Parts: sequence; structure tokens; C-alpha cells
Amino acid sequence: MGNPPEKYLLSCDWGTTSFRLRLLNQSDGRVMTQLTAAEGVAAVYSRWKEQGSVDRLEFYCEVLKTYLAILSKDVSFSLNGIPMVISGMASSSIGMKELPYAALPFLLDCSNTICEKLESPGGIPHDILLVSGVKSSQDVMRGEETQLLGLAGSFPVGETGMIREAAASREGAVFIFPGTHSKHIRVKAGAIVDFDTFITGEMFQLLTRHSILKETLEKPESEKMTAGNLNAFLAGVRHPGVTNLLQSIFSARTNYLFEKLDKAGNFCFLSGLLIGAELESLRERKTGAVILCGGSNVSAFYEPALRELKLPVKTLIVSPGLADNAASFGHLLLFQQLQ
Amino acid sequence: MGNPPEKYLLSCDWGTTSFRLRLLNQSDGRVMTQLTAAEGVAAVYSRWKEQGSVDRLEFYCEVLKTYLAILSKDVSFSLNGIPMVISGMASSSIGMKELPYAALPFLLDCSNTICEKLESPGGIPHDILLVSGVKSSQDVMRGEETQLLGLAGSFPVGETGMIREAAASREGAVFIFPGTHSKHIRVKAGAIVDFDTFITGEMFQLLTRHSILKETLEKPESEKMTAGNLNAFLAGVRHPGVTNLLQSIFSARTNYLFEKLDKAGNFCFLSGLLIGAELESLRERKTGAVILCGGSNVSAFYEPALRELKLPVKTLIVSPGLADNAASFGHLLLFQQLQ
Repeated sequence: MGNPPEKYLLSCDWGTTSFRLRLLNQSDGRVMTQLTAAEGVAAVYSRWKEQGSVDRLEFYCEVLKTYLAILSKDVSFSLNGIPMVISGMASSSIGMKELPYAALPFLLDCSNTICEKLESPGGIPHDILLVSGVKSSQDVMRGEETQLLGLAGSFPVGETGMIREAAASREGAVFIFPGTHSKHIRVKAGAIVDFDTFITGEMFQLLTRHSILKETLEKPESEKMTAGNLNAFLAGVRHPGVTNLLQSIFSARTNYLFEKLDKAGNFCFLSGLLIGAELESLRERKTGAVILCGGSNVSAFYEPALRELKLPVKTLIVSPGLADNAASFGHLLLFQQLQ
Repeated sequence: MGNPPEKYLLSCDWGTTSFRLRLLNQSDGRVMTQLTAAEGVAAVYSRWKEQGSVDRLEFYCEVLKTYLAILSKDVSFSLNGIPMVISGMASSSIGMKELPYAALPFLLDCSNTICEKLESPGGIPHDILLVSGVKSSQDVMRGEETQLLGLAGSFPVGETGMIREAAASREGAVFIFPGTHSKHIRVKAGAIVDFDTFITGEMFQLLTRHSILKETLEKPESEKMTAGNLNAFLAGVRHPGVTNLLQSIFSARTNYLFEKLDKAGNFCFLSGLLIGAELESLRERKTGAVILCGGSNVSAFYEPALRELKLPVKTLIVSPGLADNAASFGHLLLFQQLQ
């Protein structure tokens, strides 16, 4: 079979704790094949520091080569020569090469993005477009801005048409990207004007894995929430103590001691408590539409939480399938515009 | 040398993560000798569950025997026969024997305390008075109520006279016992009427040991805070984001990325942020005097934080030496009244 690199694009979203590599069709963004791995830049950086002889960029490219070899087994042609776009923590101080942050306001037409083109770095047979992040006077992000580019800039029909409209409005909108470090990104007239980070997902991990509460919590067996667990989750979301988390978090211990909830219900309660505390912050600031951009793994939690809080705003839930593709759409746009 | 058990009392404060055993002079509460260890009931309980053959109370008594043997080396007489009072998590579901909680209001004249006398349990040559804790409709504590008995009930002169007066007042007072799980205990007319738990100390440990922030934090070398570190601490205490901890905690990452603080300063900032969030809750409720009962290891932090917040209340800082002895005074009182 031939090797038509101009038909394809390699799209890589490399976060602190996760890695995702996809082969896209350039013409329509269709995903030809993909893989995900738990090898985030934090782990790679630790290994790089331990070894101490190989150049940093080369070391990261060796990791990329391994995954490219795995991905290439899925297709009947060579991946050599196919260009690659990488966003996320890969451009951070613990990534493959550190790039300075772009500033605010950050226009969503791709014109403010800071990128660097790396030509076959470390002998890898691909040109890489490495994408940097954005900073405000007090916060930073790497990756979510590229997802937002993808959501707001791609295919202006149907669902994405509504997203473009909200992003372009003068009233403004808040885009929520839930996760380990959730981002609330404020967009006005087609530009990111501010954003906040919430340590929600990591806090939940800390508490369930390392705290005194861990004995009182247990991940529910089924992926689908039972009615009882959903009730426990919503009780957490609307807990009046969200304004003092140090106190309300401890109630997960007494919920169990007092037999108010079983371990699975308590797990859901704590999750609701943290997500509720994060979303409660939306009430404090006047805002236009709230747009939830959760992938399939988190929307199941944030969606009922947003409903429960009855925030006095127009809320749009981006379909998890589209949210899962946001980074890839952003990569495609950046590649087309910056080529 | 003789063995005058009627002159002495063994006082044991056994928490989740720490153990303290003291030999007291019964007549004046003077500490003859003492030891502390990191062997809290959580660790003992884990080992007991692993072994699976020895009876639970016996297993805990074996641990006590080891420490009694160490303590006995400090004195020139046998400890055999000296009575012992034990409070804290030793009476919990993970302790030597579970006792039910006492209810609220909990009178500070020792009349509401739930205790059980164990005669030479596990063949140990001591009678043990095991002290239970207190519960409200939504919270629990084991240990701090005994410390409060000691502070409010002992020697009504000088500093403790002011404490007794505040505890007896009809206006009420809040006693703060800082720690892994800080307690704010509300006292009115000589009785505990309510209390709240804050997971402040444990949260600080989770964040400094296990979170993404750990790379941006470093415990200052000196025990004494430098002026720079004190400023960083106070910046945390008065951080406007205390109402949304999930967001403000993340600012410890940007403090470091933006080179606003070095690692030691950032460590102090995070500590201030959490203590500030805990103390901010005092503003929400109308209260009489605030009485800080921190031992020597925590008062250095809570004292400047209380000053910085300028809470509109009368604040009394219990001297760390007295606070360190609170549990022992409580043991002495309980022993004398319940003998």
C-alpha cells in the first residue's frame, strides 16, 4: 500500500497523567485509529530526570516512537511522514520542550496561539507542531484552549453552531472542561478573556486514595448510577456546607459512622460535594451561557449536578462524543491555518 | 524502693495517629515522666486485623505493656498497680474497645462522660478507665472533650480561671482545638452544646505529600518562621478565595510557576490558606469568646492567623504548655470523680 501523508494528520493530546494519539483524516477530522495510555508527561519527566544522559526532546520522542509503532499496526500503510500536532502539558516545564504561554485575550480564530514547528526531532520521521498554553495574571492552562479552538472553530452547523454563537456573543459564556484540574473558561466576543482552575478531580483522588475517609468510601460496581447513588450524589451537590469544604468533607466520615449512607453511596456523596462546590462558584459571577464540555467519562456527573443547582443561566451540554473530539478538531484547525 | 500506686496516675491520650503516655502525680497533676510515639490506633487496628487470632483488647494491651516497660525505666519504682485513664480514639470502632458516644449537651462537670472500668485487662497489672467521646446529630469527637474537661475544670486561678469563666458564661464561647481534624467546640453555661470538625491538618498533609503541588512546596528549614515566610502565611490566611478552596488551593501552583513565592514561602502560603479557611467559619456564626487551645506545635500558626483575621470577638490564647497538659488534667479529674 502507498503512504499518503497529505491525507492524514497525527493528533496527540499529552496531559500530566494521560496520553492520547490519533490518526485523523485531514479532510473531515474522522478518527481512523487511536490509542490512549496512562503515560502522562509527569511520569516521562521523572524517568528522564533519573537517566540523565539522553537529551530531553529526544527522550520524549523515543516515547512517541513506541506509541507510533503500536498505532501503525492498525493501518495498512506506513505512518512515516504524516505531520503531527501535540498539545497539552507536552509544552510545559515538565514536557518535551517548554514554550512560553500565550496571553489574554486569546482569540479563538487561532491567531494568538503560540506554536513551534519541530522538524523530525530526535530523528522521528514526522514534523511536529508543538502547541503552547495560555496564562492569565494568576492562572495557567495547557490543552483546554486547544479543545476550545476545536469546539468553537469547527463545522459551524448543528450543536457546534450553538457553541460558536455563544463564544461569539457579547454577553459571554463560560466553558467548563471538567477533569483532574477543571477549567472554567470565560469567553466573550470570540476570545478567551479569563479562566479559573479547580483542583476537583485531584482532590477526589487524594481523598479516596489517601485520607481517613478512604475506609468509608467504595467505588460503585456498576458504571451506571443506581437511583440510591444518584440521590447520594445530589445530596452532596446541594450540601449547604459547600462554602466550607474543610468541614463538609468530614461529613463523609459521619455519613458512614451514622449509617446514613453505605460506602458506595458515600463515594457518590463526596463526588457530588466537590463538583457542587466547583459549580457553586458560577453563582458568584454574572455570566451568560454555561457550556459543559465534558467527555464521556465525566459528563454523567456534571450534567445532573448542573441541573440540580438550577443555576440561573442558559446551560448547554456538549455531547460527550463531540467533547472527546475537541482536541483533535483544534489540532486540525491549527495545522490548516499554520501550515 | 516502694511502689506507692495511690500517689500516681497513668494518663494515656491515644489518637488515630499518635500515642502519649504519662506518669502523673495525683496530688497536683505534675508530669513525672512521659513518652510519645507515632503508634496511633489506626496502625494497631490494622495489625490486629492482619493477625486474626489474639483477642482485640488483649492485642491493644500488649502494645500498652511495651510502652509501660519503656516508661518504667525512667523511674525508680515499679509502675504495677498504678491506675490508668485512656481517652481518644482508643474507645472507637478501631480502638481497644468501642464505647458508645455521650450525647449533647455534655456537661463540663464530668457528669456526662461515658467511661468503662476495665480490671487488669489482658493480664496487665493496671485497672484502666477507658473514656468515650461525644456525638452531635452530625459529628463525632473522641479526646477533645476530655481535654476541655481538663482546661475548664482544673485549678480555677489565673489563665484557667478565665477559661472557666468563658465556659460558664451564658453568652458562650468557641474552643478551638487545632490538629489533623480540628475541632471548634461551642460551650454555653458550662456545657458543650455543639461542635464542628475541620479536616485542615489532614488536608495539608494530603496536598504536601501526594498532590501535584508537592513539587512546588518545601517545609522551611527552621522551626521559627522568617519574616518572608510569615508574610506568605498571612497572604494565605487573608486570601479572598477561601470561600472556594478547590480554586484557591490551585493558586499554590501558580505562585510557584509565576515565581511569586519560593517553595518554603509557598508551603507557608498553603498552610495559611487552609487555616484561614477554617477560621473564616467563625465569622459566619455569632459567638462569644474564641479560645485557642493549641499545643506548642500548632499555636505558632493559629495565633497569627487569628490576629490577622481580626475576628470581631474576644480571643484568648491558651498557653501551649497548658494546652499540652489538657488531656492529663482531664484524666485526673475523671479519675478523682469516678473512682
